[in-house]
Amino acid sequence: MQHESTSVAAIGVIGLGVMGKNLALNIADNGYRVSAFDLDVSKIRTAEQQALHEFGTQDRLTGFDSLPSLLASLATPRLIVLSIPAGKPVDAVCQSLIEAGIETSDIVVDTGNSLWTDTIEREQRYREHFHFFSSAVSGGEMGARFGPCLMPSGNADAWQHLASVWEAIAAKVDSQTGLPLERTAPGQTDIQGEPCTAYIGPAGSGHYVKMVHNGIEYADMQLICEAYHLMSSGLGMSAADIGEVFGRWNQGPLNSYLMEISADILTQDDPDTGAPLVEVILDKAGQKGTGLWTAVSSLQLGCPAPTIAEAVYARAVSNQKSLREALSQQLAAPANPPQLDKENFINALESALLCAKVACYAQGFQLMAMNAADQGWQLNFADIARIWRAGCIIRAGFLQQITSAYEAEPNLEHMLKAESFAGMLAEHQQGWREVVAQGVMQGIPVPCISSALSYYDSYRAAVLPANLLQGQRDYFGAHTFERTDKPAGDKYHLNWSQSPRDLVKIG
Amino acid sequence: MQHESTSVAAIGVIGLGVMGKNLALNIADNGYRVSAFDLDVSKIRTAEQQALHEFGTQDRLTGFDSLPSLLASLATPRLIVLSIPAGKPVDAVCQSLIEAGIETSDIVVDTGNSLWTDTIEREQRYREHFHFFSSAVSGGEMGARFGPCLMPSGNADAWQHLASVWEAIAAKVDSQTGLPLERTAPGQTDIQGEPCTAYIGPAGSGHYVKMVHNGIEYADMQLICEAYHLMSSGLGMSAADIGEVFGRWNQGPLNSYLMEISADILTQDDPDTGAPLVEVILDKAGQKGTGLWTAVSSLQLGCPAPTIAEAVYARAVSNQKSLREALSQQLAAPANPPQLDKENFINALESALLCAKVACYAQGFQLMAMNAADQGWQLNFADIARIWRAGCIIRAGFLQQITSAYEAEPNLEHMLKAESFAGMLAEHQQGWREVVAQGVMQGIPVPCISSALSYYDSYRAAVLPANLLQGQRDYFGAHTFERTDKPAGDKYHLNWSQSPRDLVKIG
Repeated sequence: MQHESTSVAAIGVIGLGVMGKNLALNIADNGYRVSAFDLDVSKIRTAEQQALHEFGTQDRLTGFDSLPSLLASLATPRLIVLSIPAGKPVDAVCQSLIEAGIETSDIVVDTGNSLWTDTIEREQRYREHFHFFSSAVSGGEMGARFGPCLMPSGNADAWQHLASVWEAIAAKVDSQTGLPLERTAPGQTDIQGEPCTAYIGPAGSGHYVKMVHNGIEYADMQLICEAYHLMSSGLGMSAADIGEVFGRWNQGPLNSYLMEISADILTQDDPDTGAPLVEVILDKAGQKGTGLWTAVSSLQLGCPAPTIAEAVYARAVSNQKSLREALSQQLAAPANPPQLDKENFINALESALLCAKVACYAQGFQLMAMNAADQGWQLNFADIARIWRAGCIIRAGFLQQITSAYEAEPNLEHMLKAESFAGMLAEHQQGWREVVAQGVMQGIPVPCISSALSYYDSYRAAVLPANLLQGQRDYFGAHTFERTDKPAGDKYHLNWSQSPRDLVKIG
Repeated sequence: MQHESTSVAAIGVIGLGVMGKNLALNIADNGYRVSAFDLDVSKIRTAEQQALHEFGTQDRLTGFDSLPSLLASLATPRLIVLSIPAGKPVDAVCQSLIEAGIETSDIVVDTGNSLWTDTIEREQRYREHFHFFSSAVSGGEMGARFGPCLMPSGNADAWQHLASVWEAIAAKVDSQTGLPLERTAPGQTDIQGEPCTAYIGPAGSGHYVKMVHNGIEYADMQLICEAYHLMSSGLGMSAADIGEVFGRWNQGPLNSYLMEISADILTQDDPDTGAPLVEVILDKAGQKGTGLWTAVSSLQLGCPAPTIAEAVYARAVSNQKSLREALSQQLAAPANPPQLDKENFINALESALLCAKVACYAQGFQLMAMNAADQGWQLNFADIARIWRAGCIIRAGFLQQITSAYEAEPNLEHMLKAESFAGMLAEHQQGWREVVAQGVMQGIPVPCISSALSYYDSYRAAVLPANLLQGQRDYFGAHTFERTDKPAGDKYHLNWSQSPRDLVKIG
């Protein structure tokens, strides 16, 4: 994947925060020359020094102190990568690029955490000035440096210019095993494997897919936290013992990056006090918005994603620490929680996590499908699962199964319809039920594990009690109902306030 | 409450759909003269005929075929009530009123289901032309005719002009018992009682409060449906038997309008087939948006309202009927669900509904409090609970307890902090747990009952596993964490990729 250096820099990078700097170094590492810019000159110097340190030469990354000089350093059509905080700063930079003389054939790639609808608007807004392209990036700072998962979308011609760079810098998976091939140091750019990037679709689709990735990530993290809580509070296990269980699970079907780092975190001591680090970390979780955007989108689309919403709410409750401390003194605990059998419970918990995880990925994939239908996007779900196998935060062995399911059936209506997942759930659902039942009897909150189970049981129900609900709506609001014995779409109303009550066909 | 008729009509009503016509008749019934308009002339004639029929005179309600003639019939400052579908139609009518010569001192009251942020924008937009005031209305068509719950907000001076009309037409409660005093026929306007209306606050606040009311309504309806599902699928009870249980519960602490109508619906036979009506109603629930707006607002505010979100999702799943039918054939059911003891289970279910109901009202009240803080509104929560005691869909004996709790402690931080509710939950939480545990083991989805329990147990937890979550976020994204042994706001990061890993204070 090495490319010969030329005297004309190939790619501009604007925004040299942690992510931008690492993307720039990754691009440079893969043989491209990078022209770098940041409003903060010290960040330019830092990036230059790090490039010199990593590559032993200053030729790979050159800082520029103005946008016109950056533009002048690039061959046309110019390829410029933005790593800028989402929102107004993106438009400010785009405006500055117009003033600096960017040309209509140039390509600007937004890699920030932009809201997907903003991306759609921007593609329109800047069309007469340049190609506004976007590529969501997952993998955090280390991913950006040594191989992120990249979710590009926008003008398909622009993608032709970007593709080789993106395929070079992306994370790679072994095409035989589907497992990540990790780079951990500069220069390891000759790794051969399937790159974790693929053209997603029209403008906004890449950022939408990344947003759903983050929603799944919220849920997956919270599921692991609930397992930790059940083992610590329910079984009285130490952090290190729980870390050991997580480490063991990471060798099996629950193998994932998040499980791996959770095991690592739980066995980490605090350098300050020597106590388990996790026990000195305050239990207030932050959030940056992509999880809630996912939940909002699911509500607006009428696509159930309760486990993702519960994960967002779990972070919100965690933040109300002083209220929780007060209420913990006031609210009653379960009377006589039954004793748990440690070994059985841990086995059931592994099943529960596996099932809940399937359910929350199913929510995410249905969400992408419903929004794609709404937006007229043709998404390739096998590709999406494939590029999530490495580089991103939710990378997991499990994604190979999702890839296979969508390869076998590209128009799969719902992930739970795949034989492989239905089979896995059949095998493990009993343990899932026991964990929720026992968690509830112990008084340990399991919002995500239990909402995932309600999701599963709701889809398992050919008949739901929404018949009563439609009856209520017809009673107080004359909202009408359909009948099971009449054609779909025929609407009826019972005149509830008359005597005798007569049935009227409305439309 | 009778007002003497004058030769100048007192109040204009624009929009004579079911709600608008009934509001107009209610206003006329209370002695005001009404000038009525609709774009659809046939609706004007219908309203006139109904007024003649109900009041025996045409003096009370007069139709006008243009907005200028309607305006000419009203004394200034004019008071005009809009009952128009939410969204663009409201702005279209406002624009037409400007063209028809409305004056700056005139007051236009939007009573539709507008989004609260639209109301805030409209108050600004129309300020130079007239007072745009809003009043949310709950109670369905019968409420509109014989006493709705009215949630007015906007300019306080405008409210002075509207107050006497609104207090006249609103539902009334007995000031001794807190129970509704129902009107069911024209002319019963001399009922003395506390009116179910109170000035809520600045523009938008009334519609926000109504939106949350509807969110609670979604959750409350779904809770009743889950109880129905548990009894029908779990205990094999007939619709009529379940209706009888609901009727009995309606005499106790679960007394509410929704419980009353559910009992009525379940004991209703289908006029067509003679089967229980509920069993011929198709299990696909509709929705009009206020529930999802509530859930979206809760996500955006970081205020947990999982039971409301689950209720919105439950309607969404119900709509995917053919998918559910297919998955019901594929997905595994619980192996050997334990036999339920009918009497014990029904008792536990009453406890579960009561507790879940408290939890979902707590979610709604916290949501109003957090949005009020965000918007700078001073809301009177005792007033809000008070006016919900009659006229609206969620009216219930239970609201008297909420009224009392906020009267005793107007700045109550969270509803569960009130002694009365903490005590009720202590008494009933064990049954709640059993119902969730048994529902889960039966394979019957209980998304709202169980999410409410997770909510309760989350607030009961002085320590949540969000410490591990912050560890994960610090690990992959350097998002930092606070420490339990250091001042709040001090942020730390562990250099996870270095060896040895050192702890850094960031800010």
